[in-house]
Amino acid sequence: MKLRVNRWTAGVVTVVAFSISACAQDAAPYLSVPARDLPVPKTVSPELQKVLARPVPKPVTEMPANAEGWKKLQRTADEIGTARAKGLAEKLGVKVEPVQVGGVNCYRVTPKEIARGKEKNLLVHVHGGAFVFGAGLAATGEAVLLADACKMPVLSVDYRMPPDYPFPAAPDDVMAVWKAVLKEHDPATVVMGGTSAGGGLTMTAMLRCKAEGVPMPAALFIGTPGADLSKTGDTVFANAEVDHVLGRYEGRIEACVRLYAAGRDLKEPLLSPIYGDLAGWPPAILISGTRDMLLSSAVRTHRKLRAAGVPAELHVYEGQSHADYLGAYPAPESKDALAEIAAFFDRHLKR
Amino acid sequence: MKLRVNRWTAGVVTVVAFSISACAQDAAPYLSVPARDLPVPKTVSPELQKVLARPVPKPVTEMPANAEGWKKLQRTADEIGTARAKGLAEKLGVKVEPVQVGGVNCYRVTPKEIARGKEKNLLVHVHGGAFVFGAGLAATGEAVLLADACKMPVLSVDYRMPPDYPFPAAPDDVMAVWKAVLKEHDPATVVMGGTSAGGGLTMTAMLRCKAEGVPMPAALFIGTPGADLSKTGDTVFANAEVDHVLGRYEGRIEACVRLYAAGRDLKEPLLSPIYGDLAGWPPAILISGTRDMLLSSAVRTHRKLRAAGVPAELHVYEGQSHADYLGAYPAPESKDALAEIAAFFDRHLKR
Repeated sequence: MKLRVNRWTAGVVTVVAFSISACAQDAAPYLSVPARDLPVPKTVSPELQKVLARPVPKPVTEMPANAEGWKKLQRTADEIGTARAKGLAEKLGVKVEPVQVGGVNCYRVTPKEIARGKEKNLLVHVHGGAFVFGAGLAATGEAVLLADACKMPVLSVDYRMPPDYPFPAAPDDVMAVWKAVLKEHDPATVVMGGTSAGGGLTMTAMLRCKAEGVPMPAALFIGTPGADLSKTGDTVFANAEVDHVLGRYEGRIEACVRLYAAGRDLKEPLLSPIYGDLAGWPPAILISGTRDMLLSSAVRTHRKLRAAGVPAELHVYEGQSHADYLGAYPAPESKDALAEIAAFFDRHLKR
Repeated sequence: MKLRVNRWTAGVVTVVAFSISACAQDAAPYLSVPARDLPVPKTVSPELQKVLARPVPKPVTEMPANAEGWKKLQRTADEIGTARAKGLAEKLGVKVEPVQVGGVNCYRVTPKEIARGKEKNLLVHVHGGAFVFGAGLAATGEAVLLADACKMPVLSVDYRMPPDYPFPAAPDDVMAVWKAVLKEHDPATVVMGGTSAGGGLTMTAMLRCKAEGVPMPAALFIGTPGADLSKTGDTVFANAEVDHVLGRYEGRIEACVRLYAAGRDLKEPLLSPIYGDLAGWPPAILISGTRDMLLSSAVRTHRKLRAAGVPAELHVYEGQSHADYLGAYPAPESKDALAEIAAFFDRHLKR
């Protein structure tokens, strides 16, 4: 009888009595979680259910052996991204034009309709792709969606990437573009942001701005950021093999971030900006999902920003894996996330 | 070779090209997730690490056979809660006095220090405990923490519970107290909230206010709410056996909510307020954790509030299970959550 009561009290009563479950049993360094079947959530739109039903990618152990192998992989991947981005631009009537800014390849992304008063606003977009993928047009899909949702001009940075250009080429390029933008724009009229690697690079750009005394933009969009490139954060473990986009850290993700870091300590703040000083940053909106392997990265960034006194808001979407808010477009939840970003920018942009 | 490229593209490229992983493989109704060991996160304070290391409660299949069995369990559980609440009140110098309000047993909870200008403000607190536990002093611990953090008077509702008083006794009591409070307070000076069952009952009270034409409070604290009593929501599955507080839905949690619902459909909006109409509600702050079995309940409520035009903000804490922000007190993350609630109320309360 005593045991039964203990089992009961260990569970439910915690909410009343505040986690007294430790009284009875010793703590362990690991929690062994049994295998389980996760149904596709019925708590999301039918369109999103189809996306969430996609299989988790199988583990990959064979890495490209050399630069040529990486480039072949990049070409294959970026062909798919390019086709998707072109299709979105056409469908939404968004114009995508190559342009050089600050000596860096960029795309000027112009929506069909620019909202009145936003003609001089600008979103500097930093794309995702694990610091390795998304060259050229391949990663402009997000810029197209943002231009359309925010109804303002977007400048998407086609930063250099490994194998030829590892860290710090990408942040160098983002900073070169940003400094060139500042020559023609009041920073209060410009916002910056992106998803995954793009969220991480946006954060790194803020650390660089602070270190170099360069003004920061009016607001940031930090989408499920690559804020910590090491295997750190609770959901990197808890959502491994659950996240249908990233799969797990070991294998493809780790290979990409190590290719980018080129031998450096993954916890250097300019690589993993969560370890930097976030004080003085502009307001930021963060987006993630309950199955996102980088949910911890998003919530850690959110907490650290707020602890630093930065107005930061978090949106977590039911059942979504990493960056599903992009992948699920045009599902209602995807449009909802884009509308939250647009509304956030509107609250902080000077017209 | 083709296969290897597919495996790669299926994973990383999705961030660029937006989830093309489905191209290669068929979708499945279930995702089979292998067993895993979750380390205690090192990304939280040492104090919180100790809490997060607590074991997940073992499944319980043997339920109390009758009302006497439930009452015995309640007595045992509530003794622990009472001791904890008394200890907190003593430590923080918070005064807890029984009082009748609107014919309902309540506790007037007065912090050592009331902030200047907040003398006439009031937080109506609705306690947690799976709708079954937390009678009497047992659930005043949260009220004590809130009074101390918000530096304002708290009125904690000791609502009636099953087995003797199932639904709708609890919402009836909350409404009776709320109507009595309105006789002496401008609703703009009063806030309401609680955790778990208390968050759900707060939401149900708003549905009742709307239906009955009763004014609503100035703001709400909806802590990881029991907003959906059915086995619904992605993290009810994904965080089963991961959440060290709740364990899993089947067994103790389901038994409690069914005892409360007394045969009614668990998806009735007054039982599961996520299914109600949330338009016109006051601003709300929601709190959850990445291991919380009710994380989906929190994020679904957050999204539904925002879709209804209600200013709602979400705070998700790294590694935390259900209501760990209470159980981990005085860990820094617990104080942080209480400070967020206090600041949120300050932004919306009329002095």
